[in-house]
Amino acid sequence: MTETTTQTTGLEAVTAMDEAAVRRNDRAYVFHSWSAQAKIDPLPIASAEGSYFTDYEGRRYLDFSSQLVNVNIGYQHPRLVTAIQEQAARLTTISPAFANDARSEAARMIVEVAPATMDKVFFTNGGADANENAVRMARLHTGRQKVLAAYRSYHGATAGAITLTGDPRRWGSEPAQPGVVHYWGPYLYRSAFHATTQEQECERALQHLRDTLMVEGAHTVAAIILETVVGTNGILVPPDGYLAGVREICDEHGIVMIADEVMSGFGRCGEWFAIDHWGVAPDLISFAKGVNSGYVPIGGVVISGDIAATFDDTSYPGGLTYSGHPLACASAVASMTIFKDEGILENARHLGSVIGPELEALAADHPSVGETRGLGVFWALELVKDRETREPLVPYNAAGAAAGPMNEFAAACKERGLWPFTHFNRTHVVPPCTTTEAEVREGLAVLDEALKVADSYSTGS
Amino acid sequence: MTETTTQTTGLEAVTAMDEAAVRRNDRAYVFHSWSAQAKIDPLPIASAEGSYFTDYEGRRYLDFSSQLVNVNIGYQHPRLVTAIQEQAARLTTISPAFANDARSEAARMIVEVAPATMDKVFFTNGGADANENAVRMARLHTGRQKVLAAYRSYHGATAGAITLTGDPRRWGSEPAQPGVVHYWGPYLYRSAFHATTQEQECERALQHLRDTLMVEGAHTVAAIILETVVGTNGILVPPDGYLAGVREICDEHGIVMIADEVMSGFGRCGEWFAIDHWGVAPDLISFAKGVNSGYVPIGGVVISGDIAATFDDTSYPGGLTYSGHPLACASAVASMTIFKDEGILENARHLGSVIGPELEALAADHPSVGETRGLGVFWALELVKDRETREPLVPYNAAGAAAGPMNEFAAACKERGLWPFTHFNRTHVVPPCTTTEAEVREGLAVLDEALKVADSYSTGS
Ligand SMILES: Cc1ncc(COP(=O)(O)O)c(C=O)c1O
Ligand SMILES: Cc1ncc(COP(=O)(O)O)c(C=O)c1O
Repeated sequence: MTETTTQTTGLEAVTAMDEAAVRRNDRAYVFHSWSAQAKIDPLPIASAEGSYFTDYEGRRYLDFSSQLVNVNIGYQHPRLVTAIQEQAARLTTISPAFANDARSEAARMIVEVAPATMDKVFFTNGGADANENAVRMARLHTGRQKVLAAYRSYHGATAGAITLTGDPRRWGSEPAQPGVVHYWGPYLYRSAFHATTQEQECERALQHLRDTLMVEGAHTVAAIILETVVGTNGILVPPDGYLAGVREICDEHGIVMIADEVMSGFGRCGEWFAIDHWGVAPDLISFAKGVNSGYVPIGGVVISGDIAATFDDTSYPGGLTYSGHPLACASAVASMTIFKDEGILENARHLGSVIGPELEALAADHPSVGETRGLGVFWALELVKDRETREPLVPYNAAGAAAGPMNEFAAACKERGLWPFTHFNRTHVVPPCTTTEAEVREGLAVLDEALKVADSYSTGS
Repeated sequence: MTETTTQTTGLEAVTAMDEAAVRRNDRAYVFHSWSAQAKIDPLPIASAEGSYFTDYEGRRYLDFSSQLVNVNIGYQHPRLVTAIQEQAARLTTISPAFANDARSEAARMIVEVAPATMDKVFFTNGGADANENAVRMARLHTGRQKVLAAYRSYHGATAGAITLTGDPRRWGSEPAQPGVVHYWGPYLYRSAFHATTQEQECERALQHLRDTLMVEGAHTVAAIILETVVGTNGILVPPDGYLAGVREICDEHGIVMIADEVMSGFGRCGEWFAIDHWGVAPDLISFAKGVNSGYVPIGGVVISGDIAATFDDTSYPGGLTYSGHPLACASAVASMTIFKDEGILENARHLGSVIGPELEALAADHPSVGETRGLGVFWALELVKDRETREPLVPYNAAGAAAGPMNEFAAACKERGLWPFTHFNRTHVVPPCTTTEAEVREGLAVLDEALKVADSYSTGS
């Protein structure tokens, strides 16, 4: 082998790139998720720090999206960066068949903060493969095949996870896998059950689930999977009693309850796991994103003692090359430690107590705001043409011209230095959990301005 | 938010662990891939460097497995570690919707070394989701649903990828997705076609593929997926002419040819892509592992200009949070740069010219060796009870006591400081592509000893 002739790292070509080079090579060579490749013009980002990221023109954006609602610890947290550098020097990778210190400790720490009935962690690379494995475990544990998943949900884009998904992202992958049935979850503002109070919505949503099990045959159902708090599809906070009701139904029929906490977990709702908010213990929790804020790709499944025991003597037929990746696990350990040291869950809860009332105030001033809802650092404003009819500001799954009003709203935010999260007729307020109150207020002030654009499409009331 | 009270990284609990703590927490909290959890005792690994890794007792193993055949650049390559540290300090993560320098450059470099007809890269987290996306692209590009995949193959463990898989790892996930048909590929030593020469095997395997398309309806088939050189299922090197034949069949029927190079790519076969060895250009190549030796989880699909164009004006319905992850992409850039600077492909080819003849010599001395085959740093010894009948040393998919002879063989290697890769009745010689000739010879000398164990189960001949 040739001797190493230089002490360069091999990153010189990257660090030397200017905006034009980044853009040119992006357009020429990068195939982007969920996009018509010729119709996009991705903004090159030069750097990021804390609650902000900056483009090559030096425009700095306060991030109300946390990218894909994953940068819970903020950008480039110095301690987390250092931990990654340290672990890179120790050991980047070792196969899942060995034992590894970072992996052992990450699993221990996750189990420690999970509901008491949960015992083990199976690590994956992200959210989709976490859900894939959760479903496989549930099927093998119960010996049943069918899975109930909610409409207005997202669970990832591999064949199994996209089949679970209850939003338009599934359509392009259909026909999907057999064995998944979609049901309706609670969502009072657009109730599938014609309910008028949270109590009624809760009761009727549970009745709907029971009815669905009746006609599907409860004994044929391996699992019910749901996002503890539905994320991209609307920050749908379940009414008190709903999750406990689902738990009860699952227990009654020997069905595995899977909580998808890929987006809602690790601080987003002011708790380690969103479900802690209601004191309910699912059988499986899928996680990713917030566990290490995506600094290194990782996800996983927290597994109850009962389900883990199914695979004590019987081999679990699933795996992946990077399950329990040392660099990824070390970053999860460091991130959780930093969360504790720096009171990040507490900050997330405090931000919730600021954002909630402030959004109410925005709603009072802006006729386009139909409803605000959320908890922790996980909030939605539902924008409507008309508060009476609740007609959304843009139609479900609107694209192109039909999405115009939302695009204008987003542009108005960006012009003012705020990067919003928008989906259909909603904007979500989902900044990093480390955002300061002052930064949040700065962002809310921009929303106040930008909502005037939305108001102009609303009948006012 | 609480002020940072310490300058610790958060990794202290990890670096403080001794072997007992690693093992205890592994057994208590980590759920392992492909295992009966109570029946395993994963060895804690303390460190790794170059071609070796070391346990907590200080036992050093020469690695003839490259973990899961992914550590192509060897362990803890100093320049690659530094590159990861540098990029960690610059920017760990940004969502797929933006443009990023490391992502742009990684895509450019991969396209540069891919066949000339290939234009773009879609990044994923690993091999399974690479194949999932390749199949989705093929289906949407052709408007057809069915996929042909080979028996004796592995494509990953998400619902789509495990359905493609043609080995026992699929069984636990069945019933699998509809729409995948398995066919037999070339494998002269255990020919499905009763062939006696490579030419005959090639011709008959292509005829079998044509016949399968005839009875399946070629116009219903979106894609044929195959491992360019079949990896875990036996290092099955296709006879000259086979891949060109598959290309021709695909062209004739408008079928997308997908080469799974997750294991065979990036140096393993002495080329950037194994398929370069035969000068054939597939429509899609899935990759992972060797692209950055798994230092940070990453995978992806290289896409032909034709297929990419399908998604110029029509949205591609797939994605994942960590697609084109900056830290992962930077490590791919650095790794490819190091490959070039340090002549790693050349070293892999040179090792092939050493390993090939040496394995022949082992075969001459050891009656248990039925066949040796491979190229680059990708070799298999097929162990048999009887060279005449070719009865495998242990049955297909043997476990427990039935796998005894192979387990004894592996133990004999480990006792002598060599970590072998074993699968069914085979041992593979798949060290890092950076291994020196002297190290390879050291490992082969251990194999020479350990094969005596296998010989004792063989009738001799
Ligand atoms: C609730 C939920 N589940 C699963 C996923 C899929 O995660 P990934 O993109 O890492 O596959 C997401 C991603 O947005 C999500 O929000
Ligand atoms: C040929 C091939 N394809 C796909 C995969 C799946 O890759 P991953 O484990 O990263 O999902 C593997 C893993 O061993 C492989 O060898």
